[in-house]
Amino acid sequence: MKIKVVSRVLEANERIAEENRKLLKDKGVFVLNLMSAPGAGKTSLLIKTIELLKSRVAIGVIEGDITGTEDAERIGALRVPVVQINTGGACHLDANMINTVLQELPLDQIRLLFIENVGNLVCPAEFNVGEDMKVMILSVTEGEDKPLKYPLMFQESQVLLINKIDLLPYLDIDIERLVKNSLKVNPQLKIFTVSCKSGEGLSQWTDFLLSKINPV
Amino acid sequence: MKIKVVSRVLEANERIAEENRKLLKDKGVFVLNLMSAPGAGKTSLLIKTIELLKSRVAIGVIEGDITGTEDAERIGALRVPVVQINTGGACHLDANMINTVLQELPLDQIRLLFIENVGNLVCPAEFNVGEDMKVMILSVTEGEDKPLKYPLMFQESQVLLINKIDLLPYLDIDIERLVKNSLKVNPQLKIFTVSCKSGEGLSQWTDFLLSKINPV
Repeated sequence: MKIKVVSRVLEANERIAEENRKLLKDKGVFVLNLMSAPGAGKTSLLIKTIELLKSRVAIGVIEGDITGTEDAERIGALRVPVVQINTGGACHLDANMINTVLQELPLDQIRLLFIENVGNLVCPAEFNVGEDMKVMILSVTEGEDKPLKYPLMFQESQVLLINKIDLLPYLDIDIERLVKNSLKVNPQLKIFTVSCKSGEGLSQWTDFLLSKINPV
Repeated sequence: MKIKVVSRVLEANERIAEENRKLLKDKGVFVLNLMSAPGAGKTSLLIKTIELLKSRVAIGVIEGDITGTEDAERIGALRVPVVQINTGGACHLDANMINTVLQELPLDQIRLLFIENVGNLVCPAEFNVGEDMKVMILSVTEGEDKPLKYPLMFQESQVLLINKIDLLPYLDIDIERLVKNSLKVNPQLKIFTVSCKSGEGLSQWTDFLLSKINPV
């Protein structure tokens, strides 16, 4: 009984996600769904990425939060179009929420759209929103066991950004084991190690993004 | 329609939570529901707490994870009774899951029961499981804005453990602002700052726990 309800919800979501995907494809917008646990650094990563790319590609942002507009204000200060979704309690974004706000963005002028999901290592991975690519961020402070304990997001993502590597000297984490565990649950995962604080690794990430928007 | 379904689920959960609470109270067991984002240090905190208290009070543990038994094995190595719940995808524990495993524990011999929830800063706070106290753990690496962005868990908890304070010298976080933001969403919150690595602050936390089990 419970499973039936869940399955109907997911089917309805998938239908709207497909609508979003078609609309965004027609407009020539490449869409990333950024997911992570709270505090892994989604917003910081987004800000650094925008700073590095905004002179080369037109960027838009959809900010998802349970409540508040702090993150959207930080992004808006970079002078890129941004829309805030407040889920009002819901622990993930879904396709319908995205569908509702797409018209608020100047899609004809955007090539790259970032959707920052609610901070949650579980539920966002269950809901497609119409993205071209799911990107997850994991902070090195979260421990090397996370791919084994929360496999779904690692499996659903095409890219894993391992963030806060500037903190490695002060942690006991075994980063090689983290990479190994990640690839164990998803052998296709493209992995970057980055620090938004020191800037290390960010250019490899932005080069990768540019190659996706302008494939040779 | 959607809200109706959610409300029925929560009502059913509350009924079973009440059953659990009554059973555990009859047995004289004090129950804590430990909640946090993934990687904030729930299991490490639990291990340290057990090491400090197990000679003075009989402890039992219910481990909640989406998948795997790693944490239960770490706890079991301390020679306390432990039961593992695998939610099989669900992002939180609910009262029925707890109800199902209670009989697996020697409740007549336990005075203090820890329930380690699934790592998630959102959903676990919506489901009572029959606990006497909700305790949340936040790592200093998660940032001082978390109480404002994820208020529910801060509001539902009686205790906040701010963990990993050994990392403070390497972070930009303003811990006074974190405490202020936490008290803003829940003025009654009892806050401890701890490090499971250095041991700082842990005795204040365990003294507090002992005072709850054996009130004067």
